[in-house]
Amino acid sequence: MAIKVVRGGICAPEGVRAYGIKEGNKGLAVIEGEGRAVGMFTSNKIQAAPVRFTKKQLKKGSIRAIIANSGCANSFTGERGMGDAERMAELASSALGLARDEVAVASTGPIGVHLDMGLIERQLRDVVKKLTAEEPGSAAAARAIMTTDTFPKEQAIQIDTSTGERAVIGGIAKGSGMIFPHLGLATMLSFLYTDASVEDEVLRRSLNEAVDNSFNMVVVDGDMSTNDMVLLVSTGKSVPVSEADFKAGLQFVCRELAKLIARDGEGATKFIEVRVSGASSMEDAREVGRSILRSPLVKSAIQGERPDFMCGRIIAAIGSSAIAGDVDPQGLSIRIKCDKEVIAVKNGAFMDLSGVAREILRGKEIVLEVDLGTGEGEATAWGCDLSAEYVRINAGMH
Amino acid sequence: MAIKVVRGGICAPEGVRAYGIKEGNKGLAVIEGEGRAVGMFTSNKIQAAPVRFTKKQLKKGSIRAIIANSGCANSFTGERGMGDAERMAELASSALGLARDEVAVASTGPIGVHLDMGLIERQLRDVVKKLTAEEPGSAAAARAIMTTDTFPKEQAIQIDTSTGERAVIGGIAKGSGMIFPHLGLATMLSFLYTDASVEDEVLRRSLNEAVDNSFNMVVVDGDMSTNDMVLLVSTGKSVPVSEADFKAGLQFVCRELAKLIARDGEGATKFIEVRVSGASSMEDAREVGRSILRSPLVKSAIQGERPDFMCGRIIAAIGSSAIAGDVDPQGLSIRIKCDKEVIAVKNGAFMDLSGVAREILRGKEIVLEVDLGTGEGEATAWGCDLSAEYVRINAGMH
Repeated sequence: MAIKVVRGGICAPEGVRAYGIKEGNKGLAVIEGEGRAVGMFTSNKIQAAPVRFTKKQLKKGSIRAIIANSGCANSFTGERGMGDAERMAELASSALGLARDEVAVASTGPIGVHLDMGLIERQLRDVVKKLTAEEPGSAAAARAIMTTDTFPKEQAIQIDTSTGERAVIGGIAKGSGMIFPHLGLATMLSFLYTDASVEDEVLRRSLNEAVDNSFNMVVVDGDMSTNDMVLLVSTGKSVPVSEADFKAGLQFVCRELAKLIARDGEGATKFIEVRVSGASSMEDAREVGRSILRSPLVKSAIQGERPDFMCGRIIAAIGSSAIAGDVDPQGLSIRIKCDKEVIAVKNGAFMDLSGVAREILRGKEIVLEVDLGTGEGEATAWGCDLSAEYVRINAGMH
Repeated sequence: MAIKVVRGGICAPEGVRAYGIKEGNKGLAVIEGEGRAVGMFTSNKIQAAPVRFTKKQLKKGSIRAIIANSGCANSFTGERGMGDAERMAELASSALGLARDEVAVASTGPIGVHLDMGLIERQLRDVVKKLTAEEPGSAAAARAIMTTDTFPKEQAIQIDTSTGERAVIGGIAKGSGMIFPHLGLATMLSFLYTDASVEDEVLRRSLNEAVDNSFNMVVVDGDMSTNDMVLLVSTGKSVPVSEADFKAGLQFVCRELAKLIARDGEGATKFIEVRVSGASSMEDAREVGRSILRSPLVKSAIQGERPDFMCGRIIAAIGSSAIAGDVDPQGLSIRIKCDKEVIAVKNGAFMDLSGVAREILRGKEIVLEVDLGTGEGEATAWGCDLSAEYVRINAGMH
């Protein structure tokens, strides 16, 4: 099996049309494509109306379209909010000639504000006219769901099976702030389509696994939204692929989209990949990776290009992470990489953290390899530094 | 019983002498006072040498002195670090004519660096000569343990018992960054003395309860140190007081010190008190208070004086907090107070968040009253806003 990156984003799989428009901070995207559908949703105890609505829509296991708006989360909006989510599905289904229970709804934006249904109705009319299976449709949809994102996020791959056939997985995502994975959920919007013919159970298992190893390993600021949603739809218009092949392909797409989200972290000046090894379990490795990237102190030290500050703070973050296993300071090592690489901490001892270590942190793509030295658990997490700009963005100073 | 604030900090109780010096970022404090002692320590899985050493010292239930340095955490320093902690106790005990096992040791500062034992020896000689039971001794000790703190933190109170007698509780503390309470531990340095005659068991219960309601409710950045320590020593040189009186007095002292830490949060421009009510349990109320004050998004919104951003983010933080009980959006209310006050969210609906709400957030001391509307659990937490200055401090840009 080979995974080959292809163009076209969410429109790359057979049977999918998409489009979107963005006017100021208000955008609307529609994705049309019939198929078996599974989803993962925020575990925030306060869930936005579209999250609760779409969970219900997915119960019968298939959808024919997704409507998503940016600029208003339709969260904490009471009964009227649920009515608005239903109305969004209704409008989309009647514009597309579908039944109302065949449409999933997603929203992103400020909490506590009601949707402008007039605007949504008008934007929907324009979007439906321009739905296309061509590449620009995916790009327009990816752009329409952006909020503080600075670029649209798309990815598609082709799986070439051993029998010479091929299937495609494509997706779009948005997210740049309020990003923290928690309790097995994804924390942004991502819509994924495949034309591979895949059984429902495989679809569900593959999505859970891919999200755990991708979106759930992205940390921007540790906050968790009320609106997060990942949907995966299989149109089945291409060939069946093996579960192993499908999982590998889906994970690739999800990881690339997840990394784009980390790169686009609000105010980020550096992209950080943390590779944890030697943990007691994979779950511990995940927790350590996320704890390191959640620490404002670690993130500030990287912003300031200070390996001396960074290493001590990484150690404090490891020790304070909610892991099941023990930590043995004497077994702990940290390697820092960019163009060059250097061992910063070796078996519990700090190495020279001036010279090369400082030089490496001046790079824009930092890799931290953290070996806990206690077991076989491994995981990779992605995040970004914490800049003064992050504070300015979130203080509304722009 | 009446609690009266008195002067003198840690020197206010009978039987305590203190002093400290600070040279550049390296300080040393000594507190001499014999008595029954209890302590609470960081729950970070990586614990600094002085933490592990002092835990052992406290096993027999009494100490006669505390030696604490700033400018080096003596954390992640291997066997040599433990030897250095022991040597600090040895030096202090011989200078004061005590046995080595009568001295507690604490350190604060950067991780992964070895102590300069020559400097500690020299500073100790100077400090011991100047030990005093007078007010300036406490102030000097409080100043000596400062790191990024911008002011020394002291508090003392007098308990007037119903029988006309009196006992005193006094303490010092340090901490301004890397502050987050976790799993029943305090996360900074605080040394507390009392001359009240109190049974060991009451001493322990009172400290646990006071720390839970004070230091454990302070959030600056969510990071947890490897060096946190709170010590409480009873010299017993004054009268016995009832458990209720002692608890009330100790909690008052701890809360005032905790609030000073929140006020001195790195880069803080606003002090925030979050009063949670209506939670399913006290533990849920605590968790919600800390979650709100841990959120970089909530803190940035307050920095930017944006009540509209703030309320949605408070709701997301409540929903993502690790509470046992459910959250009912329809029962949730938020009141914002400073000189004026306004209801920002009432039974799940956003009120007008322009006018008065914005005016209130321009204040320097913000109170947020969050009513979850589901039970009787209450708690108060303290923190500060997140400023671009926090990032600059922790990026080493000063």
